Amino acid sequence: MKYTAQDIAQLERRKRGHLVNALSGVKSANLVGSVNDKGQTNLAIVSSVVHLGSDPALLGFIQRPTTVEKHTYENIVATERYTFNAIENSFIEKAHQTSARYSRANSEFDAVGLTPEFSPDFLAPFVKESNIKIGLSLEEVIPIKSNNTKLMVGRVEVIYFPENSFKEDGHLAIYENNVVGISGLDTYLNISKNTRLSYAKPDLPLKKL
Amino acid sequence: MKYTAQDIAQLERRKRGHLVNALSGVKSANLVGSVNDKGQTNLAIVSSVVHLGSDPALLGFIQRPTTVEKHTYENIVATERYTFNAIENSFIEKAHQTSARYSRANSEFDAVGLTPEFSPDFLAPFVKESNIKIGLSLEEVIPIKSNNTKLMVGRVEVIYFPENSFKEDGHLAIYENNVVGISGLDTYLNISKNTRLSYAKPDLPLKKL
Repeated sequence: MKYTAQDIAQLERRKRGHLVNALSGVKSANLVGSVNDKGQTNLAIVSSVVHLGSDPALLGFIQRPTTVEKHTYENIVATERYTFNAIENSFIEKAHQTSARYSRANSEFDAVGLTPEFSPDFLAPFVKESNIKIGLSLEEVIPIKSNNTKLMVGRVEVIYFPENSFKEDGHLAIYENNVVGISGLDTYLNISKNTRLSYAKPDLPLKKL
Repeated sequence: MKYTAQDIAQLERRKRGHLVNALSGVKSANLVGSVNDKGQTNLAIVSSVVHLGSDPALLGFIQRPTTVEKHTYENIVATERYTFNAIENSFIEKAHQTSARYSRANSEFDAVGLTPEFSPDFLAPFVKESNIKIGLSLEEVIPIKSNNTKLMVGRVEVIYFPENSFKEDGHLAIYENNVVGISGLDTYLNISKNTRLSYAKPDLPLKKL
């Protein structure tokens, strides 16, 4: 089936959203934790977290122009601290429910029933229920002129992860922790290991690791 | 297990690469097809394709400062056309092998055994073996100062996808097509549907769709 840019543009808005959101492939599923200067916490689901680099360790996500994540954006810019928390099978519905438009005074933690977890050396709240948690400091906010979104660049300050999924060579087997992915706007995916392959070189056969 | 930014920075380079690349969660798995003005094709694996917006339909990916994808970058800037092709279970090893450092004259299509597919109305080559293929035009190259990478913003010009995975409401079930994901640097993941949930509103229970 072939659709051109014009076919896509002519779709009804919601239908277009479903289709285009599926095109990039499987998306990561994270909850962004943040807090404002009054101590009001915020939790938002994002499917756009992307690896930017390892040295220094930088992660990005896309901030929409006007969305339910507006509180998150304001908090991050104000405090320059936020967390990513991997969504797991056991709390998919709670994570999804954070996308509802709650008022500023109503923390999504309370509204959906997830537990804020504070560390003495980090301002923003983590999600207690998550096994892979990352504390970030805001490094750069980059405007994307093409559609008035922003790339939020964060530096990894601290990570929490299960020791038994951390392999000798540094590989972290997130798929051993019931971490899920997202497809399109509203579909959650199970993930499981297919294969691990050796570093590729020309004219050398790959090995399964 | 807790690692601070300092712990991460002190890891041996390769080990740090493995760990940090796993932090964002499951990553999409795509092959980027491109061609230069001499007709030499190029194919590169990327795990950083990210949804930027649906109207217009925009997708981004991260261009590293110096990598094997340098040919891809030069081609995209020169021709302003490129393709994303979803990696499927049936050709994981071939896709992975494109990350080897081949010379400019040696097309990864030939080197790994994938088939370039040309459309009369689109300059860049698609991957024939892939069921979900996207033709893009370059919209914006955005420098990320924090680590000298670039966000490559592309506008979706044409898509090819299986009609039987295209649902009435616009949802495209990529997970019905043996599409895989990536974790870390070298691990390929199977994906499968867990659940699909209704649009979230405060004080309204979610429904499974």
